Amino acid sequence: MPGVIFADRLQAAVDRTGTPCIVGLDPHPELLPPEFAAARDQNRSRAERARALADFSLEVIDLVAGQIPAVKPQSAFFEACGADGVQAWERVVGAARAAGLLVIGDVKRGDIAASAEAYAAAYLEGAARCDAITVSPFLGRDSLAPFLAACRREGAGIYCLVRTSNPGSADFQRHGEPELSFVIADALARWSAETPELMGECGLSSIGAVVGATHGAELARFRARMPATPLLLPGYGAQGAGAASIVGAFLPRTKQQRAPRGALVTSSRAVLFAYREERHAGRTWQDASRAALEEMIGAVGAALAEL
Amino acid sequence: MPGVIFADRLQAAVDRTGTPCIVGLDPHPELLPPEFAAARDQNRSRAERARALADFSLEVIDLVAGQIPAVKPQSAFFEACGADGVQAWERVVGAARAAGLLVIGDVKRGDIAASAEAYAAAYLEGAARCDAITVSPFLGRDSLAPFLAACRREGAGIYCLVRTSNPGSADFQRHGEPELSFVIADALARWSAETPELMGECGLSSIGAVVGATHGAELARFRARMPATPLLLPGYGAQGAGAASIVGAFLPRTKQQRAPRGALVTSSRAVLFAYREERHAGRTWQDASRAALEEMIGAVGAALAEL
Repeated sequence: MPGVIFADRLQAAVDRTGTPCIVGLDPHPELLPPEFAAARDQNRSRAERARALADFSLEVIDLVAGQIPAVKPQSAFFEACGADGVQAWERVVGAARAAGLLVIGDVKRGDIAASAEAYAAAYLEGAARCDAITVSPFLGRDSLAPFLAACRREGAGIYCLVRTSNPGSADFQRHGEPELSFVIADALARWSAETPELMGECGLSSIGAVVGATHGAELARFRARMPATPLLLPGYGAQGAGAASIVGAFLPRTKQQRAPRGALVTSSRAVLFAYREERHAGRTWQDASRAALEEMIGAVGAALAEL
Repeated sequence: MPGVIFADRLQAAVDRTGTPCIVGLDPHPELLPPEFAAARDQNRSRAERARALADFSLEVIDLVAGQIPAVKPQSAFFEACGADGVQAWERVVGAARAAGLLVIGDVKRGDIAASAEAYAAAYLEGAARCDAITVSPFLGRDSLAPFLAACRREGAGIYCLVRTSNPGSADFQRHGEPELSFVIADALARWSAETPELMGECGLSSIGAVVGATHGAELARFRARMPATPLLLPGYGAQGAGAASIVGAFLPRTKQQRAPRGALVTSSRAVLFAYREERHAGRTWQDASRAALEEMIGAVGAALAEL
């Protein structure tokens, strides 16, 4: 028995912190504060570089714990340090969970049959498991089935890519009529309805969708097509999306339920590397990040106040 | 300067071995021969389980070295053992390259911007690098650009998923008119033409495409749309595709060039776990695998003889 399933753990965490804002842990070596310069020093061993990625991420976890419901570590930056990086990833995932944060592993995996099962085991089971991970739908429903099976066993969740935040997302995701992203959205809504074990008491499924915050005008259409799907909205901040653009992704509040429902807004660089911005000059990187996160939480909260 | 680029290294390896057959290194713990049972023993430490995956893979490498142009390790099985598994992966990739085999890392990565750069660094650069990797096109052209940049710097290659071998590939890959897979194929052909640095002297690009061998009737259409694209054909053997079905993926031979050109045929389970089949009863697993590989090389060679 998995205990409380992801959808409900997530809503509880949003209720507790009062915000749908989360922080992406993208420890880009070139952008890290000077005290973590070892991460970009090719004269250091790979283990030392990986340790700097973890040390930075752990400090960010300390900064944000209790204030936001989840963090979203980006696997690629850790994998770039090979096995040492994956060891650092495991440290970071464990520390975030220990700090009471939900962990959405941004791994974007997608494969078939036994390979998909192995990826599900890698990221949704075992000691270093995430609460949820991002997955790619490109290989079709049978490629997602092993992830869904792991979600049922472990009370975990997935966020399936539907419409990503980058300019190139239009190349293939908008192909066809209706466009592919809408077809995937409809499929996710159907799969959620067919998988009641993953439906939370909060009325949302543990099968989520990634829809870039950069597609503000379309968010309400995605929301309408996936009425019980938690959305993950990347692209806030550094990628240019503002607070007003994300309102359409949320569900209306109810009398019982005053906290924002139905979506998470994620920002990485704009929070992690706020110290690089002119307007934060003179602050420590921690203070700059703290201020940037407060600003984001405030702006998103204000935009959602009228829901 | 990258030296000989992937497209030409691959054709040279096919010329040398005389076959386009390759073996997928998918060390599925449940299917490994009894002497590697530690891989599926949950009482063993993760490091011991990972070691069993590597030990099996290294034996397979010894079996096939010199007979086939490349191996295709499947990252998922290694990642399932976390950092220990990735260490095993690095051992396997290194051993395959040391044995003169090209390594096509089956990692199916796809992400944007700095994350894609980090994945490219993880799998196409550094000590544990592959000669080529599989990538997902779902996020669009800008998501592939960092991989192509790494290919130019390192003389490496990519195989982009176009039409996968699983039944669910129809769910989204066939969406639209023309179907998405054909749109991706056309885009790859265009990107190859626009990237002359990745075009080999053999007339093929280092930008390849994955098209399931299970789609025999369509292979010639994919080949026609991507005239200079090396194809990777999974699904041979255990997934049901036979030798006759893959002929359409190949390019006609020339007088100068008698070896098969334009595609690799990959088999995993049917070779790795041949010992489990009735008809190989009484053979060691190594002999069974050797026999299965010989059979495959023979059948594919016979099917291609008339090209």
